[in-house]
Amino acid sequence: MTTSPFQQRITTTLDAVRLQRPLVHNITNKVVMNFTANGLLALGASPIMADAIEETADMVDLANALVINIGTPSDRTGMVMQCAVSHAHNTGKPWVLDPVGAAATRFRLDTARLMLEYRPNVVRANASEIQALYTGELGGKGVDSTETPEAVESLAMTAARDWQTTIAITGATDLITDGYKQVRLHNGHPMMARVTGTGCLATALTGAFLAVEGDGLTAVTAALALLGIAGERAAAEVAGPGSLHGKLLDELYLLTPDIMNQHLKLEEQ
Amino acid sequence: MTTSPFQQRITTTLDAVRLQRPLVHNITNKVVMNFTANGLLALGASPIMADAIEETADMVDLANALVINIGTPSDRTGMVMQCAVSHAHNTGKPWVLDPVGAAATRFRLDTARLMLEYRPNVVRANASEIQALYTGELGGKGVDSTETPEAVESLAMTAARDWQTTIAITGATDLITDGYKQVRLHNGHPMMARVTGTGCLATALTGAFLAVEGDGLTAVTAALALLGIAGERAAAEVAGPGSLHGKLLDELYLLTPDIMNQHLKLEEQ
Amino acid sequence: MTTSPFQQRITTTLDAVRLQRPLVHNITNKVVMNFTANGLLALGASPIMADAIEETADMVDLANALVINIGTPSDRTGMVMQCAVSHAHNTGKPWVLDPVGAAATRFRLDTARLMLEYRPNVVRANASEIQALYTGELGGKGVDSTETPEAVESLAMTAARDWQTTIAITGATDLITDGYKQVRLHNGHPMMARVTGTGCLATALTGAFLAVEGDGLTAVTAALALLGIAGERAAAEVAGPGSLHGKLLDELYLLTPDIMNQHLKLEEQ
Repeated sequence: MTTSPFQQRITTTLDAVRLQRPLVHNITNKVVMNFTANGLLALGASPIMADAIEETADMVDLANALVINIGTPSDRTGMVMQCAVSHAHNTGKPWVLDPVGAAATRFRLDTARLMLEYRPNVVRANASEIQALYTGELGGKGVDSTETPEAVESLAMTAARDWQTTIAITGATDLITDGYKQVRLHNGHPMMARVTGTGCLATALTGAFLAVEGDGLTAVTAALALLGIAGERAAAEVAGPGSLHGKLLDELYLLTPDIMNQHLKLEEQ
Repeated sequence: MTTSPFQQRITTTLDAVRLQRPLVHNITNKVVMNFTANGLLALGASPIMADAIEETADMVDLANALVINIGTPSDRTGMVMQCAVSHAHNTGKPWVLDPVGAAATRFRLDTARLMLEYRPNVVRANASEIQALYTGELGGKGVDSTETPEAVESLAMTAARDWQTTIAITGATDLITDGYKQVRLHNGHPMMARVTGTGCLATALTGAFLAVEGDGLTAVTAALALLGIAGERAAAEVAGPGSLHGKLLDELYLLTPDIMNQHLKLEEQ
Repeated sequence: MTTSPFQQRITTTLDAVRLQRPLVHNITNKVVMNFTANGLLALGASPIMADAIEETADMVDLANALVINIGTPSDRTGMVMQCAVSHAHNTGKPWVLDPVGAAATRFRLDTARLMLEYRPNVVRANASEIQALYTGELGGKGVDSTETPEAVESLAMTAARDWQTTIAITGATDLITDGYKQVRLHNGHPMMARVTGTGCLATALTGAFLAVEGDGLTAVTAALALLGIAGERAAAEVAGPGSLHGKLLDELYLLTPDIMNQHLKLEEQ
């Protein structure tokens, strides 16, 4: 398999993250805080997590990128998130949105749509969430998708252009588009869906890559490729999802650009 | 060991959970959110966790069962929990209560007793908590019990009848009663008490079984049997509780009705 | 290596914790709750975590020691923490402060300084945090330090005397001082910095040792020695930080006074 310029740029961003150790600020859900902080540390980034309004702007200023995940929303954290993305937008800080469960309830859909107004650099979601965000119709099954990325492909292209962002829809095959270019990623393993927060971790890692790589499409593709390959390698070693949880973090720590190049299953369009 | 009709029904509910993949809504404590979400996923159920009043009724409507765990209570989450159980009660949604630390402080005891008014299908607790709930007297050691299930056996029978629920008291031997029938379960391993949230996980798994099995006694016995056997098998493979945490989830993922039938140590009365 | 009276006292406190199983109350950050509860259980202590104002004084009264960690502060938890430390101070309950991120934002620095007024028995922090607390100047990199313990050594001596507390600054070498005596600890492994909350765990374990050992210098040295040696032993067995997370807890469970005496690398001054 030859290595395209895009693929080369993806793997070199991994070195950049490890060299620069970017500070990634997370306002995220209570279920995955520990796991995503550990994922960022394993990769080589420096996570911070905070949700007090008193320090929101300070934290955005300190950080090299911002991660917003609405997985356990409340009126209080919604306000903090709005303050953070507004400040990020005004100061040019890159940020990524994970609209967890936006297809499940009107409250989450409204919260996620409010965030969209502040122009995230990347939206990482499942197919039902992107569909709900764009159409305004609820769906999915709780925080899980009932659609495949392929089923919402043309909608995602349109949405990415309308929202002026990059959309990454994860599933058996990940679909990534900025509304013009499209990338499909065939890495990953089904057992990863049995570990809570692998989607949230994909979003957090995207934050780390956004801190060192200005192009959203490159940053999120790098994050998803890294996580997918780490998941494949980890799944090959374990009997179940409890052990996968730890091994996945080990592989994030161990992966090199060379290993990524060997395992990457990527199609560009 | 012959297999009783009750035992058969217990093991077949495991297949039902895996086939139906019920959506289980959890309003639970911050210490165990990640572990119990992973436990539900390992089993084959679909967890959701949320505690915003704005989406409480929607989440209960979406879910196939509700889990209420008062492990880190506040006035805000107490109100959300009351809203959720009231809605579950009015709409006939099955739900399970875990009164974590109800024996430790008056605030927790009052919170747990308020929840009881909305008629949980199952109460999963330790002996000190059941004693405190019934007598109104504090006791225990923090969130741990200072009584054995056996010591509160007759009190539990009376309480189950009074509250019209099924009570499951976990300990070295688990005691389960709906006020008429009694079940004792001798599965499990002492090292499980060194992993935070194994009791909370028992409650969360009970939610998954309640979603597919209308009888509370059957549902909670299935959950405790599954967890106890998974714990035994996991403990045999590890040196300490850190590894048990992951292996326990692996075993929840791997267990089959056949393995359950081979290892189940159950007495019916 | 001969065993000094101080070293002997350190290792015997480990037996005391396991014998007494102290109840340790934690008001701590949402990222590390699960990990630090598991660490306390692995050691042999009994953790409780709560942050409701309604039960704050009750929990402090029930507990044998109190752990305050400001890692994810808010106005609500700040008030609860102040209530808890005020009650601990007034009733003579030992407590330990972890000023997470005190060097990062003014809000955290002010919160941590307010806590200091209630005279913690021990402050466990990194070098940037101690420097910020003493000088009032922000610094560090998020929740990470940009200084070594050695660089703030004389400042720490002065601060410990001024605040009438014991200060433990963790890093490649840990520096511990009550303002008069100094201890250096050379245990630990660099990979521990890739697991979120190892510093927070050091603080939580200090709470357990404070519950059985009245001298703060002895208690925190015991906690840091135990964790450092556990980390060394765990790191030798694993490929990355995901597996280290679990193995570290296993080693906390398995360590004996004999193993501690064999591995302890301690200098007294």
